[in-house]
Amino acid sequence: MPRQFADRMSCVHRSFVREILKVTEDPEIISFAGGLPNPKCFPVREMAAAAQKVLNECGEAALQYSTTEGYLPLREYIAQRYSRKGVRVEPEEILITNGSQQGLDLIGKVFLNKGDAVVVERPTYLAALQSFSLFEPVFRSVPLRDDGIDTDALSNTIGEGRAKLLYSVPNFQNPTGITYSRKRREEVAEVMSRHSTIFLEDDPYGELRFAGEDVPSMKNFLGDNAVLLGSFSKIVSPGIRLGWISAREDIMEKIVIAKQAADLHSNYLSQRIVHQHLMDNDIDGHIAMIRAVYKRQRDLMVRLMEESFPSEVHFTRPEGGMFLWVTLPEGISSLKLFDKAIAKKVAFVPGQAFYSDGSGSNTMRLNFSNCDEEKITQGIERLAKVIREEVS
Amino acid sequence: MPRQFADRMSCVHRSFVREILKVTEDPEIISFAGGLPNPKCFPVREMAAAAQKVLNECGEAALQYSTTEGYLPLREYIAQRYSRKGVRVEPEEILITNGSQQGLDLIGKVFLNKGDAVVVERPTYLAALQSFSLFEPVFRSVPLRDDGIDTDALSNTIGEGRAKLLYSVPNFQNPTGITYSRKRREEVAEVMSRHSTIFLEDDPYGELRFAGEDVPSMKNFLGDNAVLLGSFSKIVSPGIRLGWISAREDIMEKIVIAKQAADLHSNYLSQRIVHQHLMDNDIDGHIAMIRAVYKRQRDLMVRLMEESFPSEVHFTRPEGGMFLWVTLPEGISSLKLFDKAIAKKVAFVPGQAFYSDGSGSNTMRLNFSNCDEEKITQGIERLAKVIREEVS
Repeated sequence: MPRQFADRMSCVHRSFVREILKVTEDPEIISFAGGLPNPKCFPVREMAAAAQKVLNECGEAALQYSTTEGYLPLREYIAQRYSRKGVRVEPEEILITNGSQQGLDLIGKVFLNKGDAVVVERPTYLAALQSFSLFEPVFRSVPLRDDGIDTDALSNTIGEGRAKLLYSVPNFQNPTGITYSRKRREEVAEVMSRHSTIFLEDDPYGELRFAGEDVPSMKNFLGDNAVLLGSFSKIVSPGIRLGWISAREDIMEKIVIAKQAADLHSNYLSQRIVHQHLMDNDIDGHIAMIRAVYKRQRDLMVRLMEESFPSEVHFTRPEGGMFLWVTLPEGISSLKLFDKAIAKKVAFVPGQAFYSDGSGSNTMRLNFSNCDEEKITQGIERLAKVIREEVS
Repeated sequence: MPRQFADRMSCVHRSFVREILKVTEDPEIISFAGGLPNPKCFPVREMAAAAQKVLNECGEAALQYSTTEGYLPLREYIAQRYSRKGVRVEPEEILITNGSQQGLDLIGKVFLNKGDAVVVERPTYLAALQSFSLFEPVFRSVPLRDDGIDTDALSNTIGEGRAKLLYSVPNFQNPTGITYSRKRREEVAEVMSRHSTIFLEDDPYGELRFAGEDVPSMKNFLGDNAVLLGSFSKIVSPGIRLGWISAREDIMEKIVIAKQAADLHSNYLSQRIVHQHLMDNDIDGHIAMIRAVYKRQRDLMVRLMEESFPSEVHFTRPEGGMFLWVTLPEGISSLKLFDKAIAKKVAFVPGQAFYSDGSGSNTMRLNFSNCDEEKITQGIERLAKVIREEVS
C-alpha cells in the first residue's frame, strides 16, 4: 500500500531512549539510562489519602467530564507557586496537560507549519525533537556552553528564516544538567527582544536545585513572548501524567482548541487527587527531601567518576535535576561503548540521540536520580572499567 | 504579528458544543445539550477501593513512568472483552489512550496529509471533525439512513480522491443514536473491499444497548482494514480519560511513535486503578444497571416527545447509547430555537454543528443519559412548548 501513512511519520522513529530502556530491562543491568525519578521519593501514602478524600467527598464530580483548561484550584495553586518565585502568571493563563510532554505537542500544533524554523540547544531534549518533528519543522541548533546557550551563535541563527520557536530547558537541562546563568539569560533576552520568536521554557527540573542559587525564569526577562511548560512528574509523580502550559491569552486561546481536539481535557480524577495532596501536605518539605536524596546520589556519582574515570573524560557537575553529561575524547564512540557497557551490565544513553544534527558521537547521558547509592557505586565501577579500556 | 500561528489553527474553532455547555451552566436550565453519562452510574465506592488497593500494594510502581502502549493486563482485559463479542484482537494490537478522543488525534496524525480525503457520516461526531481538521483534510460526507450510512452514496464518494479514512460510529451514533444494521454492515464491507481506505470504527456506546440485539463489529467484516476506538468513559467514568485504539501491527507501530511524541503514555495510576476495579467487581452487572437507567430515561423522553411534540417533528428511537436526534420541519432553524429554549430554561445542541457541509439547520441533538426522570419530564415539557410555538 504506497503512501498510506502521512508524510510526517517518515520524520520520526521510535524513541531511541525508549528502545534502550527495553535493553536495560534485564534486572542485572544497572541503568543510568532512563530518566526516572527515584520511586522512594513518591508520596505514596499521601496520594492514597488524597484519593480516598476526593472519591469519598466528591467522587461523582471527580469522575465526570470536566473543563479543557483543567481544575481551577489546581491552576490557582500553580499560579501561586510561580508568584512565590517572582513569576507573574494568572490562573487563566495556565492549562493542565498530560505531563509537559503534551505541552510540546500542543505548542508544535499551534505554531508550526511544515518548514518553519525551530531553534534548539545542542544537545537538546530528545523527546522535544520527536514531538516537534511530527510538524515537519527545520531544526537549527545552537551550542550550549557551561552557563547556557551560546548567545552569539543564537543571534546569528535566530535571524535566519524567522524562527517560530526557541526551545530551551534553562534549568538542569536534559541531557546535560547545564543551567543558564543570570547573565546568560539577560543576554538571551536581549537577542530575543529583536525577534518575535516565542521562547519556550521547559522547566520540569527547576524545583530540584540542591546546590547554588535559583535564577529567575526567562519569563521575567521576556514577558509575554515566553511560554512556560511545567510538570508534577518530578515533585509528585510521573505516572499521573500531569503538567501545564502557561501562555498569554491569544496563544492560550489556540492551545485550548488544540487540547480539545487532542483529548478534551486531562485526567480529572488525578487533577483532583494531586490538588488534594498539595493542599494537605508539606510540599516544600517533600521537595527538600527529594533534593537531599538527589544531591547525595549526584555527589557520590561525581566523586566516583572523578576517582575512576580517565582524566581525558569530562563531565558536568549539575546543581540540580537528574542528569549529568559525559564527554569522551574525540573519536571515541559512545554507541560502541554502549554495547560494551551492556555486556558488563551497566547502561547509559549514547549522546548522539540528543543532537538534531547527528553530532555528539563522543557524548553520553547519565541519570543519577533513579539508582540508590549502592547501585551507583557498583554501576560507576563497571562503567569506569569499560571507559578505561576504551580510553587508553 | 502576522501569521504567527500554524495554518492548521485557522481550520478549527473552539468547540461549539463546549461553548454551549457554558451557556447551560445556569443551574435553572435543564440541559439535554451535554454528552455526559449519568454520574449516579459511576462506580465511586469501587474506584475508591481499587485506588486504595493499587496504592497500598504497588504504589511506587503505579506512580512511576510506564510503557507507551499501556498496562498489559488492562490491554489483555480489553482483548478478552472483544473476544467475548466475537472480535479477534491481540493485546499487542491495543494501545491505551486518553479517552477515545485521543485516538482520533493519533489516527489523524498517523494518516492524514493536508488535502487527504476523510469520509464522514452526515451528520457526524463534532469532535471528530475538530480533531481531524487540525490535519487539514478534505471532508466528504455521506448521508446516514435509519439503518446506517448510505452505501450507494458511499460507493460514489469513496472512489473520489482515494479517501484515507472512513470515520464511523456504527453503534448508537453521536449525534443521531442510529445503529448500522447487519445488512448495512455487509454492504459497507462490500464497498470497502474495493478500496484501501481504513474504516475507523469509533464505538464508545456499544456496551450501552438496552433494546434489540447486538450487531457484529465492522472488524468482523473488514479484518485488518478496520481500526477500532474504544472507551472506558461510558462504562467506568469519563473523568479518568481512558480509552484505546486497536489496529494491526504496521499501523500500531506508527501510533506508538505518535503517542510517545504526544504524551509518552496515558495516566498509569488510573490504568492500574481501572484494571483493579475491573478485576474486583461485576462489570457486566454494573453495565446492566447503566443500561436499565438509560432505557428508563430514553423511554420516558420518547413517550413525552410522542405525546407533546407536533406530528411534523420527527425523531429517532435509539436502541442504546446516550442521544436521540430531532428533525424539525424544513425552514425551522434549531439555532433560533436554541435562544428561545434557553429563555425557557431548557437546552439542546443545534444540529448544524454535526454537519461538515454546514447543512442540518433544522436538526437538534438531545441527550437522555445525564438528566433524571423528573428533569426529563420538566425539560421536555418546556421544550415542547417552545417547539409548538415555532411549528404552527
